[in-house]
Amino acid sequence: MLKVNTNYQKLPGSYLFSTIGKKVAAYTKANPDRQVIRLGIGDVTQPIAPAIIAAMHRAVDEMGAAETFHGYAPDLGYEFLRNAIVEHDYKARGCQISADEIFVSDGAKCDSGNIQELFALDNRIAVTDPVYPVYVDSNVMAGRTGTYDEAAGTWSHVIYMPCTMENDFVPEFPKETPDVIYLCFPNNPTGTTITRDQLQAWVDYANKNGALIIYDAAYEAYISQEQVAHSIYECEGARTCAIELKSFSKNAGFTGVRLGYTVVPKELVYEGQSLNAMWARRHGTKYNGAPYIVQRAGEAVYSPEGKAQLKEQVAYYMKNASVIYQGLKESGYTVFGGVNAPYIWLKTPKDMTSWEFFDFLLEQANVVGTPGAGFGPSGEGYFRLTAFGSYENTVKALERIKAL
Amino acid sequence: MLKVNTNYQKLPGSYLFSTIGKKVAAYTKANPDRQVIRLGIGDVTQPIAPAIIAAMHRAVDEMGAAETFHGYAPDLGYEFLRNAIVEHDYKARGCQISADEIFVSDGAKCDSGNIQELFALDNRIAVTDPVYPVYVDSNVMAGRTGTYDEAAGTWSHVIYMPCTMENDFVPEFPKETPDVIYLCFPNNPTGTTITRDQLQAWVDYANKNGALIIYDAAYEAYISQEQVAHSIYECEGARTCAIELKSFSKNAGFTGVRLGYTVVPKELVYEGQSLNAMWARRHGTKYNGAPYIVQRAGEAVYSPEGKAQLKEQVAYYMKNASVIYQGLKESGYTVFGGVNAPYIWLKTPKDMTSWEFFDFLLEQANVVGTPGAGFGPSGEGYFRLTAFGSYENTVKALERIKAL
Repeated sequence: MLKVNTNYQKLPGSYLFSTIGKKVAAYTKANPDRQVIRLGIGDVTQPIAPAIIAAMHRAVDEMGAAETFHGYAPDLGYEFLRNAIVEHDYKARGCQISADEIFVSDGAKCDSGNIQELFALDNRIAVTDPVYPVYVDSNVMAGRTGTYDEAAGTWSHVIYMPCTMENDFVPEFPKETPDVIYLCFPNNPTGTTITRDQLQAWVDYANKNGALIIYDAAYEAYISQEQVAHSIYECEGARTCAIELKSFSKNAGFTGVRLGYTVVPKELVYEGQSLNAMWARRHGTKYNGAPYIVQRAGEAVYSPEGKAQLKEQVAYYMKNASVIYQGLKESGYTVFGGVNAPYIWLKTPKDMTSWEFFDFLLEQANVVGTPGAGFGPSGEGYFRLTAFGSYENTVKALERIKAL
Repeated sequence: MLKVNTNYQKLPGSYLFSTIGKKVAAYTKANPDRQVIRLGIGDVTQPIAPAIIAAMHRAVDEMGAAETFHGYAPDLGYEFLRNAIVEHDYKARGCQISADEIFVSDGAKCDSGNIQELFALDNRIAVTDPVYPVYVDSNVMAGRTGTYDEAAGTWSHVIYMPCTMENDFVPEFPKETPDVIYLCFPNNPTGTTITRDQLQAWVDYANKNGALIIYDAAYEAYISQEQVAHSIYECEGARTCAIELKSFSKNAGFTGVRLGYTVVPKELVYEGQSLNAMWARRHGTKYNGAPYIVQRAGEAVYSPEGKAQLKEQVAYYMKNASVIYQGLKESGYTVFGGVNAPYIWLKTPKDMTSWEFFDFLLEQANVVGTPGAGFGPSGEGYFRLTAFGSYENTVKALERIKAL
């Protein structure tokens, strides 16, 4: 008789974005005349850049002719893409990463969910709070998180590192020593980040404690300040304690194209086992490579034309971020983020809860955002707006908020 | 201190296809003048059909314009694709499957590796022997298979169901009752299959014992005989005991395009838990959808032009299968498969082991195949050739084999 993985039953019922979706659907059904502006989910809206479109057309044509057809891709990804990644994302920044430490995938969400498979079930994980839900939920499914405290919104075996305005959104070293530390900078959802020096302290901490950092650098392209690291490998000693996850979703608008990669340095050896070899084995056993067409699209991201076009795209979204940030400030809100990330994180006014402010904003301004409480207990009393809408809608949304 | 998942260390060192790759590389390096023909790995060689290429070009253009750009896909896949699947793969065959039971993915390999996450660790799995390595290896990584017996090539907690010429490659019900049964028909690697009535007996057996069948129908498009089921849902009662995996790799040549789907009927409820809901949760947590462009390519597979073109493509490969089958027969080999599948399974001559025959064929005929022993202990003494080469190469390979 089949027995199910009972860890799934421990997951709290409703997923953040489906709850938002239902609330918005109910509101628009009841108020069909209102134009709702969505600054909630982190999906991009700008089309794929021309240089990348051209590369995909070429790749599609290749797939249509026997001489240039491509079947199964190499497990780790095509060399043309892995070499471009090494060259532009690492070598250019003085980071020593080789092509056989790059694992191309269909996105950072999958990688951040799958990476925990390499770890024993009794590892203790630490997350910043608030946090991207996948890190915790994938560990819940594996059975690594203990029991859920409904009232507190926390798991008994997860170490939470609060990031709030009180500590400038910089996590402090936890009292208990974790085995795996998930860090995401620039951060989703807070839109804030830490300096290179602060990141170096985390690298030192991890090395001292034999802990592994899973570093999610999905928003790296939005960094505008010199003192912020684009990669954790800018820090000394990161090769012995850190895996880095990268996405093409936010820097190149690939949310519907699907491409990402994971860096697993060969120095990561625990109990005599190489995480690089283990991840290669997992890739070879359970994955069959990203589409050829998509890997060619990824290569075009690093072409001179692609780079120029994407710089403009990032600037477009960061102009939105500035509109949101300034607009909220002028309206008297306490606001964070938006400088090195496409997210603005605001303190809800008048001691409203995150969800109260969600309802208030939806009903009074017809603007959809994301309640901070959906990202963890320390997100309560905060609210996220994203810069990924169109400029016109962003301006309109802020006019409405100012008029409240 | 990070502790690794020690189950990975239990996996036997070398993966079948990487061993083959190394042997072939060594041979070609030593004999640069010889033209080696590869009928080993199950990768296709024919280009993507024109109707699908046209659909992908259109989708690429859509991604390049703001009005038609597509970001994150719906978790389960776009409705246009799920509806086409329901219509053509199920309704047309009298199978009752609804669109919310279809989960679109980037391929059946990922799905067949990931599906075991829904099951408790103490379930007992059963596999046919020989077998596609992913079913077992993904369970090894999860810790469900016990210890490995190097000499026997078997795992202590896996139930093996031998499929050899002695039982016409039809698995018998095992002595121990399994909780999960992996079946693949038409079969990889043997190229043989079972009848609808024989499959019905397995459905009845599973329902009687509360076991779940994972049915891999990747080679369904190659079925030529009326008495063979295209889907397990052609059998009565399959909705209460079977998950079906489908791939676009072999019917449409998508090995480098990446698309597949899994069917999880809503009747699959164990210990009060719906596998459909659990798989939806997994999809939502660890996966971000197949690329829009690829899902449009999948839709074109079901268009009238796409269907006609793919029928020709399948016929092309099956002509190769016939060339291999007849050629081997004429040379006195004992041969199986090739009628409902693109694989030919032959008994090695003169009591050669699978690997001895591999070396013999590589050195004497410069033809690469796959040793049956690589698929499990009952594959010893057998050898796989695939019909996925070009017609010219296939004819040439068989001329060489006949001349031995």
